[in-house]
Amino acid sequence: MGDSFGNLFRITTWGESHGAGVGVVIDGCPSGLPLNEEDFQNELDKRKPGQSKITTQRKERDIARILSGVFEGRTTGTAISVMVTNEDAKPHAYDHLKELYRPSHADFTYDKKYGFRDWKGGGRASARETIGRVAAGAIAKKLLHHWNNIRTIAWVEQIHDINSSVDKKTVEEKQIEASIVRCPDKDASEAMIERIHEVRKSGDSVGGIIRAVVRNVPAGLGEPVFDKLTADLAKALMSLPATRGVEFGMGFDSVKLKGSEHNDPFVMQEGVIRTGSNRSGGIQGGISNGEDIDLRVSFKPTATINFEQNTVTRDGQEVKLKAKGRHDPCVLPRAVPMVEAMINLVLADHYLRNQKRFL
Amino acid sequence: MGDSFGNLFRITTWGESHGAGVGVVIDGCPSGLPLNEEDFQNELDKRKPGQSKITTQRKERDIARILSGVFEGRTTGTAISVMVTNEDAKPHAYDHLKELYRPSHADFTYDKKYGFRDWKGGGRASARETIGRVAAGAIAKKLLHHWNNIRTIAWVEQIHDINSSVDKKTVEEKQIEASIVRCPDKDASEAMIERIHEVRKSGDSVGGIIRAVVRNVPAGLGEPVFDKLTADLAKALMSLPATRGVEFGMGFDSVKLKGSEHNDPFVMQEGVIRTGSNRSGGIQGGISNGEDIDLRVSFKPTATINFEQNTVTRDGQEVKLKAKGRHDPCVLPRAVPMVEAMINLVLADHYLRNQKRFL
Amino acid sequence: MGDSFGNLFRITTWGESHGAGVGVVIDGCPSGLPLNEEDFQNELDKRKPGQSKITTQRKERDIARILSGVFEGRTTGTAISVMVTNEDAKPHAYDHLKELYRPSHADFTYDKKYGFRDWKGGGRASARETIGRVAAGAIAKKLLHHWNNIRTIAWVEQIHDINSSVDKKTVEEKQIEASIVRCPDKDASEAMIERIHEVRKSGDSVGGIIRAVVRNVPAGLGEPVFDKLTADLAKALMSLPATRGVEFGMGFDSVKLKGSEHNDPFVMQEGVIRTGSNRSGGIQGGISNGEDIDLRVSFKPTATINFEQNTVTRDGQEVKLKAKGRHDPCVLPRAVPMVEAMINLVLADHYLRNQKRFL
Amino acid sequence: MGDSFGNLFRITTWGESHGAGVGVVIDGCPSGLPLNEEDFQNELDKRKPGQSKITTQRKERDIARILSGVFEGRTTGTAISVMVTNEDAKPHAYDHLKELYRPSHADFTYDKKYGFRDWKGGGRASARETIGRVAAGAIAKKLLHHWNNIRTIAWVEQIHDINSSVDKKTVEEKQIEASIVRCPDKDASEAMIERIHEVRKSGDSVGGIIRAVVRNVPAGLGEPVFDKLTADLAKALMSLPATRGVEFGMGFDSVKLKGSEHNDPFVMQEGVIRTGSNRSGGIQGGISNGEDIDLRVSFKPTATINFEQNTVTRDGQEVKLKAKGRHDPCVLPRAVPMVEAMINLVLADHYLRNQKRFL
Repeated sequence: MGDSFGNLFRITTWGESHGAGVGVVIDGCPSGLPLNEEDFQNELDKRKPGQSKITTQRKERDIARILSGVFEGRTTGTAISVMVTNEDAKPHAYDHLKELYRPSHADFTYDKKYGFRDWKGGGRASARETIGRVAAGAIAKKLLHHWNNIRTIAWVEQIHDINSSVDKKTVEEKQIEASIVRCPDKDASEAMIERIHEVRKSGDSVGGIIRAVVRNVPAGLGEPVFDKLTADLAKALMSLPATRGVEFGMGFDSVKLKGSEHNDPFVMQEGVIRTGSNRSGGIQGGISNGEDIDLRVSFKPTATINFEQNTVTRDGQEVKLKAKGRHDPCVLPRAVPMVEAMINLVLADHYLRNQKRFL
Repeated sequence: MGDSFGNLFRITTWGESHGAGVGVVIDGCPSGLPLNEEDFQNELDKRKPGQSKITTQRKERDIARILSGVFEGRTTGTAISVMVTNEDAKPHAYDHLKELYRPSHADFTYDKKYGFRDWKGGGRASARETIGRVAAGAIAKKLLHHWNNIRTIAWVEQIHDINSSVDKKTVEEKQIEASIVRCPDKDASEAMIERIHEVRKSGDSVGGIIRAVVRNVPAGLGEPVFDKLTADLAKALMSLPATRGVEFGMGFDSVKLKGSEHNDPFVMQEGVIRTGSNRSGGIQGGISNGEDIDLRVSFKPTATINFEQNTVTRDGQEVKLKAKGRHDPCVLPRAVPMVEAMINLVLADHYLRNQKRFL
Repeated sequence: MGDSFGNLFRITTWGESHGAGVGVVIDGCPSGLPLNEEDFQNELDKRKPGQSKITTQRKERDIARILSGVFEGRTTGTAISVMVTNEDAKPHAYDHLKELYRPSHADFTYDKKYGFRDWKGGGRASARETIGRVAAGAIAKKLLHHWNNIRTIAWVEQIHDINSSVDKKTVEEKQIEASIVRCPDKDASEAMIERIHEVRKSGDSVGGIIRAVVRNVPAGLGEPVFDKLTADLAKALMSLPATRGVEFGMGFDSVKLKGSEHNDPFVMQEGVIRTGSNRSGGIQGGISNGEDIDLRVSFKPTATINFEQNTVTRDGQEVKLKAKGRHDPCVLPRAVPMVEAMINLVLADHYLRNQKRFL
Repeated sequence: MGDSFGNLFRITTWGESHGAGVGVVIDGCPSGLPLNEEDFQNELDKRKPGQSKITTQRKERDIARILSGVFEGRTTGTAISVMVTNEDAKPHAYDHLKELYRPSHADFTYDKKYGFRDWKGGGRASARETIGRVAAGAIAKKLLHHWNNIRTIAWVEQIHDINSSVDKKTVEEKQIEASIVRCPDKDASEAMIERIHEVRKSGDSVGGIIRAVVRNVPAGLGEPVFDKLTADLAKALMSLPATRGVEFGMGFDSVKLKGSEHNDPFVMQEGVIRTGSNRSGGIQGGISNGEDIDLRVSFKPTATINFEQNTVTRDGQEVKLKAKGRHDPCVLPRAVPMVEAMINLVLADHYLRNQKRFL
């Protein structure tokens, strides 16, 4: 009981890594939005395995099919069902994992919670589940574009210990997409690609940090005291596989400043109230203030590695595990569209939730 | 529309800083739990203003009164209403703030969202709202104690640039409460107190980091794919005032490790499956694995300072603001019970949500 | 876990018959609505005990107090807390009911569900709980008035076997309030009052039917396929104590007609699409069609009677029960404001839910 | 935004009459339940068009396919996705309905709400949507069987003015299924079939009443004060197409009795507390009392008739409509499995919601 997300723009995802397919039902999309299957494909292609030499080589075309909720090219206002058929089913590729727990995977916890688990390729815990999120995020993105030209831009800021230098005020999708690791800093991008090749060769993996900004957010989004925009974004992002932390504006580094150094002074700019700095990351008191939203998410190194590891079997025997075959040494490039999707889902939901008022 | 939190253990808080009072309605507390007003008081006293020389000097006794849902000393299973009357109402203390926006407060965003705002001492955005959370958290704490002796322990790990060294496996509440800054490392505690005195004198403020561990958590709590335990804890903590980031286990530092260094191997200990390390912070695939939950939350420096600051008025005039009177130079010590409350609320909710199964 | 109702205009009620008081927290009321305590009082007075010689003689003033969510006379957009203190507490009046189950009351089922119960005057199952609903309904009524002059009018259509004849298109509140039984048909009203006096004297009780119409409802309210307006109204009304059935338009009598007799033809009236008849009761496909909503709710005879009745004790002994003291021979007149409140709560919620669209 | 139903056993349906298919996602089914596609088929066959000479002759096989949530024959505890492909797509059969509003259908209200509509065979408002409900209901039925052998039995009690006489305490599914109109009273069944033939020939339609009992319900299900079992069942049933009213126990007829005649006395039977009569229909104070649940739902005559009717076009021209081709003269027989499904969904949800307690 946790397969739905959102309040007024609400998604429910379904599907396992090696079942019939994966999909999503979107409830609450306003009627009349032009929508077709191509709207999904650009986003799905960004998260697709096998898109470049540095990602997992699982072969999937990930073609989205709209099953309901769109009539004559426009959304009807009722449930939109989108499905992607699984193609790369290798029924026996995971047989050796059936009885043992891969370290830092969800195998053990699913077994403890549900009494048994779908052990084929991660089952429900597979990142393949995020296809439904990314498809739904593509609709949210379109809505946000229509409403206020709200645009979410995410990129890989750090891989392992390789950091980058990016101007968050001006960076555009084109620069990000020019890098197969989705880091718009060219030098860093090259170093990151090299690092990923290294760890792939050694059978190891690396994690990293994705940064995202959202531009043109109107002031007023966020529902205190619990559904603050920070709170809902944090939940959305921490529901992605492999995430370990999230921070807004100056985040953990805000601790190093005093109040007099951290506060964002209000100023007038072209007749509009703005803040002179944006250490708050665009959200104050849990509500957007009209400045760019600025956040960072950390992803741990992928748990699947081609190393021999100590583990135990379901019945409690200590054994050695050595994963076979393809592994994804770094999920970060493919996580960029997932991060964007989750942010867009939260913003579309909050845009719809922002209540009528009498003043 | 965001004043409720939780699914099966659900709270709704109400109240403003300078209104009649603040309170909470708890829906979903199992029936038959022994409960009386003293159960709340210990927790409320920890978050009370004026409890030590380093906190704000607002005078409030914060006496909780149970208005419903308890009969003959036990919970009835229906709505529990708890109220605290506001006593330190200074109707004119905030008159000078009526028409201008305090930097990095919620004044501006509330005005943009709602069209106007309760400008007396923060109104709904005041940390005084957390009284309802802390009261409800005291019930959750009692439930968790009954169920599995689940215990949440939080402390101040860092203030400004003063870090501490604490053994998270053994630290107990007594050591934490021995420090007025709620840091169980004696040297660090003294340095922190001194730093808070310094910034108070200069009219400035500091933030910091609270760390929390939860012991005796059974494996299996958390509801993938969206209501992962990490996701719901992140939302809960990021809904507290002044929070800027949250991380689990190794958090952002996990990025610096390779998969082979970060994975937690499974081992057998006294016939039970455990992990040999706990870099995951007790949660894998969004579900508790039976190890201690381990997390950190960062709080920015308090926005209220006694410095002259640049700001603007509601009608767009640039002005100087200098706050008058008492200010809270560091919210961290009083935030400890808030953090504990939010964690306990999430865990009680997930304990109730952990579904019946046939295997 | 069932003390809340509504989605975007969401209420949570609390309180027992003989506890400290009863109240409600309203989440989702738009900001800026002028609101003061007098807005509640008219509605509360209509449901108050002791308001006329034919209702229960419990003495309560039922004075509503706003505890939060209103600032300088207008709603702030955050949680509104309203409380009514219980005054007529007779701590020992119910001692004889402590160990036995009153027939057709909720005593037995509460005991089975919760393990014990608040046995003082019905506890949480008391109709006194509806004070919170009526108070919240008063806010919904005000919103509906502002939005489209939407007006709900309910009256007593039948008591026991005494039916009335009322022109539902023209009946107004004034005519209804002119009758202490709230039946605007004078002859029927007199007969009803006489019947209630008779059953009071004999220690018995009677039920009846309340009819309601809602005028000026815009077409388009209702959220298929599950949150149809009929469905949400049915739930709202069936959540009131003592209700046994609800029907819309021709209701159960629609069965006696053929499709050709029941269908409402569309016609043009003054340039607007209307239906030539309103057998559908203003709702088609679960969505309002702009005609008056028309519905009926049945209430069983009150369970409390001054007759000797067979029953059993908690520990399974068969005993005789004879209720002592005051009893309410007919709840219908006081149920009229409850019915209106529930309808208004549903309509305000659906008005807010009616989504933005692109066409 | 209304395509989901339920709290802990939560379903989301999708699909239109003439789109790619219809389906449902079930969230909250406990793990480990044996489940395969045959479990759905028996229920789906009961609601299938063309199953007998008295229903609509649309040709659909309605074969359910499980897309997720079942692994090695058992439910995994995560989202179960079930789909039925639409086969009888007649793209041009509805062209003449594109621009006009069929009386007492949802055409007009969908247009007003959403700005346009899927006009092919009712689109989302088609009874075809209930396939998802019936499929999900089959899972709920299985759960209820496992838990307490809880069994829901529904039948056609009345068609037009033809009433039946059925012993609700003993009637079994076999007797109901022996009648193509699903009325276990043989004489009434024959008269009903004849009446349906008559109205079919004349191009007209009839409605009726479905009665349902639920056996072996444990005492304690229902969540006061809003999510009473009566309230949630009423909502569930009123969300079905063409329903006009619902009543419990004696329902509207309870009005004709006095309290002394209506109250159900408690008695001891074989050491268990029971009620000597069941005028309450198994629910008191919104909570099941262990007696059979007893309810009735009324369905208006089907709106589609082969009569010439007055109506208007989208742009407000008065025109004549004469429907062409097949029509369903009476939906009642096929509505029986829908009613059973909705009841089972509510009971499974409330079984899961029935909270842990300490007494």
